[in-house]
Amino acid sequence: MNLSSQRKATASSESLQRIFTVPEDSHSTLNIIEQKLSEDLAGFLGDNIVAKETSLANIETNFKAFKIPELPQFVSDYTDSMMANLVAHSVHTAAPTFIGHMTSALPYFVLPLTKLMAGLNQNLVKIETSKAFTPLERQVLGMMHHLIYDLDESFYQSKMHSSVHSLGAFCSGGTVANMTALWAARNKLLKPEADFEGVTQEGIVAALRHYKYDDLAIMTSERGHYSLSKAADLLGIGRQNIISIETDEHNKVNVALMHQKATELQEKNIKVMAIVGVAGTTETGNIDPLTELAQLAREIGCHFHVDAAWGGASLLSKKYRHLLAGIELADSVTIDAHKQMYVPMGAGMVLFKDPSFSQSITHHAEYILRKGSKDLGRQTLEGSRPGMALLVHACLQIIGLNGYEILINNSIEKTHFFANKIKAHSEFELITEPELCILTYRYVPHKIQLALSDAIEQGNTYRVEQINKSLDLLTKYIQKHQREHGKSFVSRTRISPVKYQRNPTVVFRTVLANPLTTENILLKILEEQVEIAKLDTISLPQLMCLIDA
Amino acid sequence: MNLSSQRKATASSESLQRIFTVPEDSHSTLNIIEQKLSEDLAGFLGDNIVAKETSLANIETNFKAFKIPELPQFVSDYTDSMMANLVAHSVHTAAPTFIGHMTSALPYFVLPLTKLMAGLNQNLVKIETSKAFTPLERQVLGMMHHLIYDLDESFYQSKMHSSVHSLGAFCSGGTVANMTALWAARNKLLKPEADFEGVTQEGIVAALRHYKYDDLAIMTSERGHYSLSKAADLLGIGRQNIISIETDEHNKVNVALMHQKATELQEKNIKVMAIVGVAGTTETGNIDPLTELAQLAREIGCHFHVDAAWGGASLLSKKYRHLLAGIELADSVTIDAHKQMYVPMGAGMVLFKDPSFSQSITHHAEYILRKGSKDLGRQTLEGSRPGMALLVHACLQIIGLNGYEILINNSIEKTHFFANKIKAHSEFELITEPELCILTYRYVPHKIQLALSDAIEQGNTYRVEQINKSLDLLTKYIQKHQREHGKSFVSRTRISPVKYQRNPTVVFRTVLANPLTTENILLKILEEQVEIAKLDTISLPQLMCLIDA
Repeated sequence: MNLSSQRKATASSESLQRIFTVPEDSHSTLNIIEQKLSEDLAGFLGDNIVAKETSLANIETNFKAFKIPELPQFVSDYTDSMMANLVAHSVHTAAPTFIGHMTSALPYFVLPLTKLMAGLNQNLVKIETSKAFTPLERQVLGMMHHLIYDLDESFYQSKMHSSVHSLGAFCSGGTVANMTALWAARNKLLKPEADFEGVTQEGIVAALRHYKYDDLAIMTSERGHYSLSKAADLLGIGRQNIISIETDEHNKVNVALMHQKATELQEKNIKVMAIVGVAGTTETGNIDPLTELAQLAREIGCHFHVDAAWGGASLLSKKYRHLLAGIELADSVTIDAHKQMYVPMGAGMVLFKDPSFSQSITHHAEYILRKGSKDLGRQTLEGSRPGMALLVHACLQIIGLNGYEILINNSIEKTHFFANKIKAHSEFELITEPELCILTYRYVPHKIQLALSDAIEQGNTYRVEQINKSLDLLTKYIQKHQREHGKSFVSRTRISPVKYQRNPTVVFRTVLANPLTTENILLKILEEQVEIAKLDTISLPQLMCLIDA
Repeated sequence: MNLSSQRKATASSESLQRIFTVPEDSHSTLNIIEQKLSEDLAGFLGDNIVAKETSLANIETNFKAFKIPELPQFVSDYTDSMMANLVAHSVHTAAPTFIGHMTSALPYFVLPLTKLMAGLNQNLVKIETSKAFTPLERQVLGMMHHLIYDLDESFYQSKMHSSVHSLGAFCSGGTVANMTALWAARNKLLKPEADFEGVTQEGIVAALRHYKYDDLAIMTSERGHYSLSKAADLLGIGRQNIISIETDEHNKVNVALMHQKATELQEKNIKVMAIVGVAGTTETGNIDPLTELAQLAREIGCHFHVDAAWGGASLLSKKYRHLLAGIELADSVTIDAHKQMYVPMGAGMVLFKDPSFSQSITHHAEYILRKGSKDLGRQTLEGSRPGMALLVHACLQIIGLNGYEILINNSIEKTHFFANKIKAHSEFELITEPELCILTYRYVPHKIQLALSDAIEQGNTYRVEQINKSLDLLTKYIQKHQREHGKSFVSRTRISPVKYQRNPTVVFRTVLANPLTTENILLKILEEQVEIAKLDTISLPQLMCLIDA
């Protein structure tokens, strides 16, 4: 604790009035920090976040107090303590060498606009507290809808600002977006009919009784995001009723298998309420065969949702949007702007092909959300929420399609460059080929690669497993130590490659969406990994023993 | 469109690199706006938001384009257009004369901190992308938990930062907070047992079959927030199974009635999964008898949740926290920091008495949310989300308990002042007495008041209804015109006062949480309403006819 924090602030009506009206002077700590943020965000983060990792236990010591302090604190003292205890130990998500997350460097203009958004403090739940932000949000949803569905002008002119329609919903992130889509799909399927007032009024038990289904199911790829199970839990469907279908060697769902499963479910009188296609799996970035999934959904009469939380931004590239072909057949689509659209955290969206779709979740309340009003809160899962749409709006206008074309293409092409370098490198193994800008790989000493190939050729699965288990430890070792060194960061995950009999295999995972990540940085990251591997005095010798045995 | 927006920006790799690295110079439009925001937020909002209301249709004309623009736009041009089209028509939620919303003026320091939060761009879903923000968030939850439950030091020392415990969850707002609590309550009730794997795995239909219940229900006050019905819909329970219990003349739920209803439900084999107490109803600010509700919940063996989204902040006042007595008996509590805690939009919280409670909604995923990790995302409804906890943390430290004591007490006492002025005024009728800082009232010309009293005394309910219907029109007229004039704003709602046979009655509603709202402002608002009433050439003459008839 520094000296200044010993100063005593006092609370009085006057001092409190001041904090609501008079900012600190321009030489105050907080003001200086703000200026640095404005002048050079990357420099600020680089200077103030400590590179070398501190243990979580250490960080926690500064957040042990559990009583709200009695006495107020001076803003400058608070700022000092947060610079030392919070900022210093934050994760440098914007660093070009941190290629393991879905976060990136941000365009600098989003910072002052975030401040403007907070200052205006609009609440998007109802028009009375958002006014101009409501049409702005509707416009962003319209633009994203058009990006996906490309309907004609008259459609957007009549629906985009219509009080009885909704082209989608803003939400805090992809999880809530997926939940919203599945919620609306469930309610549309189990809609009111004759004496039955609908699942929304009567609940699932009554709904299944009325419609004479024994159960509900949602089919998706085994690579589907965990938010889908969470949604199934929340919606009362149950996690077991998320039917995970195996993927092929390119991590794309096997549609034939899904078809077969659909028949089985039908025979058991279990109604498939939705098929969820994945457009950009979180772990490998691959895209399901969306056109075929849409066809299957049509055949069995169910909702078709596409979770493009990560990959959806690729639609902004004319060159690569063909990778998502079929997305325009989806009934609903999730896209996160805080992933590849370069907006800060908290900007999820779900788009609805049919502007009447969300009527199945429409609700009203007396003092708010009046029928016929343009209150966005009538058709969102969340209630009060901030005007994040401004930041998406700004990026769309200031970066423009031309700008996104360059950004998205660069990311994808940089990933292909990296994949080629990994493949050409004698000590690395590319595990999944990139389709968008995610790939997975691992470090495998050349000798081990040869031994592994031999074992596979000989059909010696025991030996393959043995080697892979040791390689898992090595991969974990490298990933952990690289993170702790603080220069660069790749994430790690476990996937089940077809070539290894679908045995779970630990891999490095990189996400190359940061425009500031250069090819040179990527090469350096490989070099660092080679160096770290040499330090592993357990797994590596074990591996060598294995192949000498 | 101003001249400068005709300029053409171009997209190139270089220009894009610049927007990720080089801010505009200090004389740029955006920079100047930022400075004004910092120097004088109130002045900025007052100068740039146009007072006189523009029609929504007019505002929408600037948000008609539905195609993402091809060409990028200069930041300054974009900023100019947003100042004219967005900021100018935003709602001045911070104005001391706008007393109809739950938004308030903000302490100035939250603006630079919001910018810092966006710049750090942490993702609280997992420790890997939040690090120091995770302990900070846990600390805020610990402090709020302590504020409600006041458990001993050893409890907080062992549970606050424990990877297998959780004292609560941050979320975008009260709606998601309520949903989270009810989700966890449902899952805990319908937990795994013998061969049954729990509602989380198998869904509601299987769960009710296993536990041999015919249905589930949630009991709450008729003044319960609409998010409770939304949660019942989402969770597959059905809106009809929210059992709304009548309130007394002080808008407090009738516990005896609830008790009776509980017995009826039990006889029908419908399991009450939760009782929800309201601590600060959205429309009138009244608090349910929480101790009695807790007692009833214990008797019938159900979860007891308190929705204190609005009123929870009153716990920060030693003088008035007794109004919420019994809240410490709740199993879970919702509190919104973006309401009376002076944090910008997007800061909801739910607190759990039992730190193991949220295990019923715990989930894992491979590449993320590993078992035993301190990843907050394992126990939240939302996935990726921003570090809003920083702003709550800052307010708690910088304002302190002493500061909140003054703020909360002033709000409540200002509301009592206003209530007294309304009661003393011959042309106004106080409809609900304030308990916290919300009250409702309406304008009723003195003659009409007398006529109404007579009609009530005579038991002439037809006449009472007739007069009240015309008064409804008058109240709507005044509220609408006052809003349109743009000087001040009270909201309006419809409530069912006992004294008017529970007929829905339109009223003005004021929320007096803005520390900058003075007593003088309140008197001026009444004066303005008297003036506006005189302009009503339809309802007022009608009313006069009624009493002359």
